[in-house]
Amino acid sequence: MTTKRRLLLISNSTLHGGGYLEHCQEHIVKFLGKQVKRVLFVPYALHGRDDYAKIARQKFESLGYGLDSVHEAENPVEAVQNCQAIFIGGGNTFRLLKALYDNNLIPAIRKKVLEDGIPYIGSSAGTNVATITINTTNDMPIVYPPSLHALGLVPFNINPHYLDPDANSKHMGETREQRITQYHEEQDTPPVLAIREGCLLLVEGDKATLLGVTGARLFQRGKATSEHDPGHDFSFLLAHS
Amino acid sequence: MTTKRRLLLISNSTLHGGGYLEHCQEHIVKFLGKQVKRVLFVPYALHGRDDYAKIARQKFESLGYGLDSVHEAENPVEAVQNCQAIFIGGGNTFRLLKALYDNNLIPAIRKKVLEDGIPYIGSSAGTNVATITINTTNDMPIVYPPSLHALGLVPFNINPHYLDPDANSKHMGETREQRITQYHEEQDTPPVLAIREGCLLLVEGDKATLLGVTGARLFQRGKATSEHDPGHDFSFLLAHS
Repeated sequence: MTTKRRLLLISNSTLHGGGYLEHCQEHIVKFLGKQVKRVLFVPYALHGRDDYAKIARQKFESLGYGLDSVHEAENPVEAVQNCQAIFIGGGNTFRLLKALYDNNLIPAIRKKVLEDGIPYIGSSAGTNVATITINTTNDMPIVYPPSLHALGLVPFNINPHYLDPDANSKHMGETREQRITQYHEEQDTPPVLAIREGCLLLVEGDKATLLGVTGARLFQRGKATSEHDPGHDFSFLLAHS
Repeated sequence: MTTKRRLLLISNSTLHGGGYLEHCQEHIVKFLGKQVKRVLFVPYALHGRDDYAKIARQKFESLGYGLDSVHEAENPVEAVQNCQAIFIGGGNTFRLLKALYDNNLIPAIRKKVLEDGIPYIGSSAGTNVATITINTTNDMPIVYPPSLHALGLVPFNINPHYLDPDANSKHMGETREQRITQYHEEQDTPPVLAIREGCLLLVEGDKATLLGVTGARLFQRGKATSEHDPGHDFSFLLAHS
């Protein structure tokens, strides 16, 4: 049933020194291909939805795609049901997930992606909500969603914007590695793929491949953490579904 | 009713280069005074409760206080009802708050602190849960508590381990300032006192004073952010209660 799944999960929308989605625009064009004419944008992760849609529209139009923002639709569920592709942008993951629940979009997006096979692009928070839960977001819990369970388009978690520990830091807050390790102290927690800025994961059916330039770390409960270069095949992470 | 309140809210348990609670031990001794003989420790924020209690016990015994850990009590609610002082340690704020709910300790601790006037010490996550909500924790949401509302011993939020923006960083994740600002984009959000490592807030009844060495930033919805040195009087933040 899930073999139709097509996902492009991006760590970060903007890479230092570059423009919005610039570092991954070639991957986006290749992923969407020529059949898709318009993309449905979900701007819920940021407060200023109009401004956010404007930025995303400008970028996608420059790549040759039209863009509709779901917040401008009279009926968001119908907008999802009728779309050709979805792009969920970054911002605050809690705010994004709560709005997806509030607008009843979780089942609608799941069906479109997993059953109808439309392409899904997520960036940062949009990548977090594509996974099984948002337990490994980096964001501040500024609102309280009805659950941390997310779209579940893949059966593992992702930590975007992954940061390696800084040996020179005098800051005593937990490192990212310590935080993910604390997650795996909890029972029955799935693998966490930590993708650095500049990195993205392409999922085509039951095949998952790391793209980009910076590599990823894989955290699994009860196992040693491992480091993986771009091009690595992560399909085994999909086998849990 | 809340004028009995006595709180010592610490940003961080360990300062770079120092031992556990070393940077604030003089404040702790002065705060607890000579009437308190034993402290009730809440180790819920870390997974290894026995080890955590051992570390805390060693430290408090070195300062002249006995320490009981609530996780060793047959009845945690009774342990709270009978204690002379409470210390809630740092770790993961979500895990801590969930365990406080699971063990039915929220009303018990509120009553002891706000009505009976026993001293409350919180550090990091233990400081987050002392406030109105944990909306401004830095921690990863590794578990899902039944609410983000916390003990509400003060009517505002705190962001511990506050980090100033790093102008040289190439990381594109949100700065702490941006995250707190996103919180204030939401309706009806209370002030957030962001306390740097090395900083603590002393609350005695309706008087709140910043202690330590590093200072704090105050974020208020719709107002300019302001910087405050140790010694600053923050009593006006208590007036919302």
